[in-house]
Amino acid sequence: MSEPSTKRQKVTYDLIYWPGIPGRGEHIRLALEASGTPYNDIANDDKDGIKAVQALIDPNSTTDDAGNPPAFAPPALRVPGAGRDGKPLLITQTPNILFYLGDKIGMVPEGDEAGKWHANAIVLTALDLNNETHDTHHPVAVMKYYEDQKEESLKKATDFRENRIPKFLGYFERVLKGNTKGDGKYFVGDKITYADTTVWQVLDGLFFAFPKEMEARKKEFPVTLQTFYSSIKEEKGIKEYLSSGKRLPYSQGIFRRYPELDRQ
Amino acid sequence: MSEPSTKRQKVTYDLIYWPGIPGRGEHIRLALEASGTPYNDIANDDKDGIKAVQALIDPNSTTDDAGNPPAFAPPALRVPGAGRDGKPLLITQTPNILFYLGDKIGMVPEGDEAGKWHANAIVLTALDLNNETHDTHHPVAVMKYYEDQKEESLKKATDFRENRIPKFLGYFERVLKGNTKGDGKYFVGDKITYADTTVWQVLDGLFFAFPKEMEARKKEFPVTLQTFYSSIKEEKGIKEYLSSGKRLPYSQGIFRRYPELDRQ
Repeated sequence: MSEPSTKRQKVTYDLIYWPGIPGRGEHIRLALEASGTPYNDIANDDKDGIKAVQALIDPNSTTDDAGNPPAFAPPALRVPGAGRDGKPLLITQTPNILFYLGDKIGMVPEGDEAGKWHANAIVLTALDLNNETHDTHHPVAVMKYYEDQKEESLKKATDFRENRIPKFLGYFERVLKGNTKGDGKYFVGDKITYADTTVWQVLDGLFFAFPKEMEARKKEFPVTLQTFYSSIKEEKGIKEYLSSGKRLPYSQGIFRRYPELDRQ
Repeated sequence: MSEPSTKRQKVTYDLIYWPGIPGRGEHIRLALEASGTPYNDIANDDKDGIKAVQALIDPNSTTDDAGNPPAFAPPALRVPGAGRDGKPLLITQTPNILFYLGDKIGMVPEGDEAGKWHANAIVLTALDLNNETHDTHHPVAVMKYYEDQKEESLKKATDFRENRIPKFLGYFERVLKGNTKGDGKYFVGDKITYADTTVWQVLDGLFFAFPKEMEARKKEFPVTLQTFYSSIKEEKGIKEYLSSGKRLPYSQGIFRRYPELDRQ
């Protein structure tokens, strides 16, 4: 299982993701911040950092210098010394990065091998909700503008608010209630894990994108939207991060506020 | 790393998934079949098996008898004795199940810790493509009929064929080319892994759903659509399975053949 104290000091992780937006990189940032793990946010820390993102998505790359296969899309995590022949390991796909980090930074349920797989299922479900949120403003074509698919977006967002949001929130509510150790504050066990940070980020994004819908759902899903959502903000590491300049505002990424798509 | 020979004999896995369709369960079946791992396909093996699927998605469940949290959706994998206090472990979410099994059934790259994370990224990317394929016939509402969203489906499928399919195939092509050990037949290393079975299943579904589009792309992505796609069919375990009655036909699941959505 996890050995956070020993491994934490050995390596500084590089997060490679678009600068200026929370996006999918935020799930990784929150896990790192909650565990007090040092990392470089390459493209936000340094103006030249964008080059690392561009190299990552080079459409002609078949492998990098260290023998890692190409990325389909950001984010990526670079781990010095953890790759083949002591070269850097490059890991892509958000849930893959989170799963890799979980054990190493102590963000999985402690001493609970089963709980580790449960936490990962919750993470994957939250990331599915993340993707579905993106589709509300891009239902027919990822590369086109929202303005070119407004009519379809209204249909998609209506279905999302009326059917998908309650389905996901109902699931989260049941998991929180079923975890009697967690007191409504944690998804698995009695301490924060990357399941908590990942679900929290999606809820936070939904509160930004669909404020009226989420406010109206608070009474229906009180454990998720009141107890859990509030308490994670107060966690060590998270609280400091959220009030720091490092926390990036939502803008034109996954979570967008188009009032016409919210509950009327 | 993986210890297939010792662990394989210890446990018979239960796959809990809808009967009669390949669906997301097929990714798990292929990994199990390719490695010669015994398993029960609960709802296909036995008429009463559907009850296990229904119990899984009971909207009132907060935990099962063994203390596992509820599932958001099928598939689930039940592992006797691997849960808390020696009870069954229930794992949900397709990539989570595959990642759990990978090590245990010898479907990860052998003796290559970095390759394990690379394989998992490829699996997650293939499953993203799987989800996007589903959205071509359900772009605005999952619970409504295709017939109620035909106009939007045509837009979505056009974008999918013109932009998304080549983007994903281009990525697969580059990974296959970059893995010099694989000879175009394997994504990571020189033996079959669950990255190969997962990508193969999505390609096979796309050949069913969009036959004209995929045929037209063969020349552009020859390693993926010719070398790789053909050779995986001949792998031990896979070959026998594909010609057996156990392999279920595509119908009204993720991969559907609507000629109007294919290349004209």
